[in-house]
Amino acid sequence: MPIQNPAATLKTKPPTHMNAPEKLNSKSELLRKRYGDGFVPAAGPWNDTIAGLVSHRSIRSFKQASLEPGTLETLLAAAQSASTSSNLQAWSVINVTDSAIRRELAEIANNQKHIEECSLFLAWLCDLSRIERVGRSTQADLSPALDLTENFLVGSIDAALAAQNAVVAAESLGLSCVYIGALRNNAQRVAELLKLPPRVVAVFGLCIGYAQQDAAIKPRLPQPAVMFENTYKVTGQESELLKDYDQILGEFSRRQEMVNTTWTERIISRIQGKSLGNRALLRQVLEKLGFPLK
Amino acid sequence: MPIQNPAATLKTKPPTHMNAPEKLNSKSELLRKRYGDGFVPAAGPWNDTIAGLVSHRSIRSFKQASLEPGTLETLLAAAQSASTSSNLQAWSVINVTDSAIRRELAEIANNQKHIEECSLFLAWLCDLSRIERVGRSTQADLSPALDLTENFLVGSIDAALAAQNAVVAAESLGLSCVYIGALRNNAQRVAELLKLPPRVVAVFGLCIGYAQQDAAIKPRLPQPAVMFENTYKVTGQESELLKDYDQILGEFSRRQEMVNTTWTERIISRIQGKSLGNRALLRQVLEKLGFPLK
Repeated sequence: MPIQNPAATLKTKPPTHMNAPEKLNSKSELLRKRYGDGFVPAAGPWNDTIAGLVSHRSIRSFKQASLEPGTLETLLAAAQSASTSSNLQAWSVINVTDSAIRRELAEIANNQKHIEECSLFLAWLCDLSRIERVGRSTQADLSPALDLTENFLVGSIDAALAAQNAVVAAESLGLSCVYIGALRNNAQRVAELLKLPPRVVAVFGLCIGYAQQDAAIKPRLPQPAVMFENTYKVTGQESELLKDYDQILGEFSRRQEMVNTTWTERIISRIQGKSLGNRALLRQVLEKLGFPLK
Repeated sequence: MPIQNPAATLKTKPPTHMNAPEKLNSKSELLRKRYGDGFVPAAGPWNDTIAGLVSHRSIRSFKQASLEPGTLETLLAAAQSASTSSNLQAWSVINVTDSAIRRELAEIANNQKHIEECSLFLAWLCDLSRIERVGRSTQADLSPALDLTENFLVGSIDAALAAQNAVVAAESLGLSCVYIGALRNNAQRVAELLKLPPRVVAVFGLCIGYAQQDAAIKPRLPQPAVMFENTYKVTGQESELLKDYDQILGEFSRRQEMVNTTWTERIISRIQGKSLGNRALLRQVLEKLGFPLK
């Protein structure tokens, strides 16, 4: 240890790398929040963009505020820059500004009021209709191909990659977001409201705005529960990991959400469909909207 | 070129960040490249994270190099931090290190050699099997619900949101990526190779590594062609915009890829399936893999 010179220490600042307090958003703190104390992964390289990604939390309460001019165009540029299968760009997006439409979308989504309150509400569409129009312009009949399950999946994944880039961009600007899968509670009525042509379906919505109330980072499954090397392995370790996660998420729920449920209880209740609307009918609705999933 | 053994590459030193693709930080330059000179949107707020998103280009040629220790864990933390429908976490990922498996995956994907050459190859899975196991542990029979198209879509979108966060994180570290949708050319054989249990399917792959050769930013459709306000509108303007885009992408293709095709020609050829393997059979394959899409 170097001999201290008390006079010198009064004048010079301490070297930041030695004495700086841990940043609120430090890598280790973020990873502890994301996984729980016992399951922090041995993560390597790190930067501000990654800290932003790992800091994500869905926000369901927004300030009444407008966004800076050009924000929508910025977010769309980020979205369109995401990968798209064979550059098909089999997605579109609707910016819902009409309050009557927003109100009905909120009702469809089990009265999620943030759909009405957020600054920007985007409906993300799996869109095979543009490709069909392009085909028609050259007398190509693409119908048999567009009927395939493969192309519904292409459009849905394209929409998801694009939307996630918009979320990353929005959060990097200090905005908050929440996806609205519950548009699928009644995909047919949503299609009517947004006047979607055949071969277009809203796969999810997205609220964007300034958080009224912050939320905590929600813990996820330990990394060894979701990642495998070379082949998928179901081992005894899994049930231990899921038990641990039940405890971690149970504590989080009690602390943050004042509810006393484990992950196991929550996902069983969710999958068994107590709040799913008619999502069980999605297959039939897709057929009506022009996606026979052949 | 000899077939690379992914395990052997772990011994080589990672390259410095000088090898990272060229960074373009000017907002206007990036937007000109993304949309073409005549279609630069009036984007507003901007920062380095957004510049990174808009800079994206898919890379299909990688250096033989290992990643910094902990990179995989960092990318997975980013991926798991993405939104997931009702926290179901209905996805998993397989890190394919076995060179024999990589070789066969490359063959399935129409001989995309970068699947063998990249530092990290990840197969992203729509995974409803973990939820089924959780249900079994409590004697809940979730089968009728897990058979639904809705939950196949949930798992596929969950996987896409997670993977896109991994891509954003990787690119922020100077790495390059390309998605491999062509794993769906033979989803059944991929499931055998990766020993996937029922209710699991590889929806796409992802190559990650250090670019051997940079690529240009590919122009996308003009913003007014993919975004609508309140309702979907097909107007005469659309065919004009698509004609303009045909010209922009045609010029890009001649300059960058030495091929003389427009977007219209490309997407018709892609959709009509000349290189699709048996993706037309995806519906039947999904049924066999435990996704009856009810």
